[in-house]
Amino acid sequence: MAEIIVVGAGLVGSLLSIFIAGRGREVEVYDRMPDIRLAGGNSGRSINLTLCERGLKVLDSVGVGDVVRAAAVPVYGRLIHDVKEELTFQPYGNHREAIYSISRSDLNKILLDYAASHYGIKFHFDEKCLGVDLDAPSIETKNSQTGLVTNHKAERIFASDGAFSAVRLQMQKKLRLNFSQQYWEQAYKELRVPPDAAGKWTAEKNVIHVWPRGNYMLIGFPNLDGSFTCSLHLALEGPLSFASLKTKDALLDFFQDSFPDVVPHMPELVTDFFTHPANSMVTIKCSPWSYEGKVSLIGDAAHSIFPSYGQGANAGFEDCATLAECMEQYGDDWTTLLKEFESRRRPNTNAIADLCVEHFVELRDLVGTPGFLLRKGIERKINQAYPDKYKDLYSMITFTCMPYTEALRVDREQRTVVDQIMRVEDIEQKLDSPEVERVIDRLMAVR
Amino acid sequence: MAEIIVVGAGLVGSLLSIFIAGRGREVEVYDRMPDIRLAGGNSGRSINLTLCERGLKVLDSVGVGDVVRAAAVPVYGRLIHDVKEELTFQPYGNHREAIYSISRSDLNKILLDYAASHYGIKFHFDEKCLGVDLDAPSIETKNSQTGLVTNHKAERIFASDGAFSAVRLQMQKKLRLNFSQQYWEQAYKELRVPPDAAGKWTAEKNVIHVWPRGNYMLIGFPNLDGSFTCSLHLALEGPLSFASLKTKDALLDFFQDSFPDVVPHMPELVTDFFTHPANSMVTIKCSPWSYEGKVSLIGDAAHSIFPSYGQGANAGFEDCATLAECMEQYGDDWTTLLKEFESRRRPNTNAIADLCVEHFVELRDLVGTPGFLLRKGIERKINQAYPDKYKDLYSMITFTCMPYTEALRVDREQRTVVDQIMRVEDIEQKLDSPEVERVIDRLMAVR
Repeated sequence: MAEIIVVGAGLVGSLLSIFIAGRGREVEVYDRMPDIRLAGGNSGRSINLTLCERGLKVLDSVGVGDVVRAAAVPVYGRLIHDVKEELTFQPYGNHREAIYSISRSDLNKILLDYAASHYGIKFHFDEKCLGVDLDAPSIETKNSQTGLVTNHKAERIFASDGAFSAVRLQMQKKLRLNFSQQYWEQAYKELRVPPDAAGKWTAEKNVIHVWPRGNYMLIGFPNLDGSFTCSLHLALEGPLSFASLKTKDALLDFFQDSFPDVVPHMPELVTDFFTHPANSMVTIKCSPWSYEGKVSLIGDAAHSIFPSYGQGANAGFEDCATLAECMEQYGDDWTTLLKEFESRRRPNTNAIADLCVEHFVELRDLVGTPGFLLRKGIERKINQAYPDKYKDLYSMITFTCMPYTEALRVDREQRTVVDQIMRVEDIEQKLDSPEVERVIDRLMAVR
Repeated sequence: MAEIIVVGAGLVGSLLSIFIAGRGREVEVYDRMPDIRLAGGNSGRSINLTLCERGLKVLDSVGVGDVVRAAAVPVYGRLIHDVKEELTFQPYGNHREAIYSISRSDLNKILLDYAASHYGIKFHFDEKCLGVDLDAPSIETKNSQTGLVTNHKAERIFASDGAFSAVRLQMQKKLRLNFSQQYWEQAYKELRVPPDAAGKWTAEKNVIHVWPRGNYMLIGFPNLDGSFTCSLHLALEGPLSFASLKTKDALLDFFQDSFPDVVPHMPELVTDFFTHPANSMVTIKCSPWSYEGKVSLIGDAAHSIFPSYGQGANAGFEDCATLAECMEQYGDDWTTLLKEFESRRRPNTNAIADLCVEHFVELRDLVGTPGFLLRKGIERKINQAYPDKYKDLYSMITFTCMPYTEALRVDREQRTVVDQIMRVEDIEQKLDSPEVERVIDRLMAVR
């Protein structure tokens, strides 16, 4: 019998196994998919992700941070493409801070390799979880190669099996689980710009490219090999939607009108569009995360968020670090340990979930508008004058490790300062004037 | 193949079958439980319910209203029992309006009998729904007597299989279903006062008895035979909870302290308490309710609410009436019909769900407090002076058929009037003074 079973060998599951093994506990991991280190091909679900300070700090704490950095592309800001093909650069931070773009599968492979080579952790692939006995606790898995159904008992089970967690479904049936899932009317689809694309915007490798278009948008993430992984965000149904773009011509017309500078660099656009799945965006919250010290949800299984802040993986990694802290503190009192884990993390994951919904609307609708750019300009100005007293929300989330709840609280306070400066007459023309500097000084003096 | 299958032969399922058959369509109903008309005994889940204007109007429209009224006890208000055994009567309406207390199983039996005798509708009991094929559409059921598993195909399937709907679970797996379920930390348990109880409060048959005690409460519903069905609302866990009351002595001490006037009339208290289940209170919302014109949720399967306003059955019956209207209007265009059904009903069921949470807190915490009684007194006064211009929320929900959304909107407007009158100095002493009457006149003149 395994001491601890982890269900799901994705980003959170593989990192969690490292933390558990690092504390001298035996752990085995089961995953329904084939080993991505062996399987080839691109499922169209491998959209890139970004790692930021808080995620990298966790990876550093187990010694795998630099391996990950070496496989990622640092990016320093957004490059906004408007419909007239004009470009505007928005730095993410005021001090040339970077976030790191990396493909989900590359990151996953690194973590699996590290877990296997440093700790000898046993991963069982092709093992789909059919059922969970919360009391035993045990899981029943079916091998997709052999068809063999097996029961695996453990002292404890962690479920890092993602947004549509099989373990959580069992908890929903058995427990009084508070639960909500809210879908966005839009979904996103992966489209590729191959590495041999050359010239114009594709020369800009150290930025995230964004084509905000109101009801839809395109985002391009750079890869180490010079390629870009783009995601098209679009309504699933309606007049302009994944459902409405039925023919090659309709698709090409739409891209020519909306993203003319992209078309020459996407030779596989038509194939990608009509073969890749449209991935849903869903916010999932639930409570409690654990059952009697025996079974606990973690990562996307416990909280699923929109990808808009690039925080999914970072938040899941922070879960692992907090769980490890609780393991240090509470030893073998697993009931208390798992409750404490939830009570430390859930307020934070709720906060980032709400912020992601808010930021998605901002990215899509506002990132290209004068009002948004002006607010960003004001924030930059305040931050330059008061680098220790003022940090914008994006920076707090991305370039610090302060709890999400704290970032949210500070931001709501700070907003009132920007609101007041926005009310200065003709602020558009006066951003660098002594008058505005005086207003900033006055407002910041009382903070 | 059946034209229409209804899953669940509870209150909504049996009434729905009557509406469908009444429109000349063939319908068969499957239920996982035995036929309650044959099965004896009391499961402890048969808490009484109350029918009000909107539910009775629907029952009248299919001709079964008077049969139901004859099996119910009309009640005209709440009789509040305080800890000192003092009683205060609060009429539900200002014009001696009644709501009707009836046991869930008696009402269900009436509807099943009516459906079978007037329309020859086929009910299949002991058939547990194991799975649903949304595309076919079809259901797979297992007979709990014979063990036989059968597949039943239909043109359309309605799921009235309650708050923990098997059909909805399938929709949640297959569709992008927005879904939330929020449990209350309290649950309720059925306790009986037998018909031979005599004297004191049990002589008051035409009221709902309420023992509000802050963190917990007892409610007593009268039955035709002179018995009362009581429900004890209490936390599931914690210092004083269903979990903490572990022994006969602890239970009796608690009742003697909290509900001394009840104890002599509950000879079966100990047995009832330790054998009856604690029923959860849960608010469930979801969307969409239907799949491609083939499958639709209805009643508790689509929206589950707290029992605090006594609206669960009434809201479910209104669902049936609205669906019937849509059937008249849209004929065989089921995709439009089911979407329209949801768009007419869901705003209303969302509104009553939120109001029920609000009212439960009010009932438990406020019903016995002077502030609450004063507000009720002010509302009664305004309503007496302006019966056409002012109706309190409870009356709008209970004694009218106005949509729940409209009742909510009107109430929020009216609250500002009561708020202003509450601010009159020494209002407690002045309720019947000309001064307050003038304030009321002035405020109502501008409405």
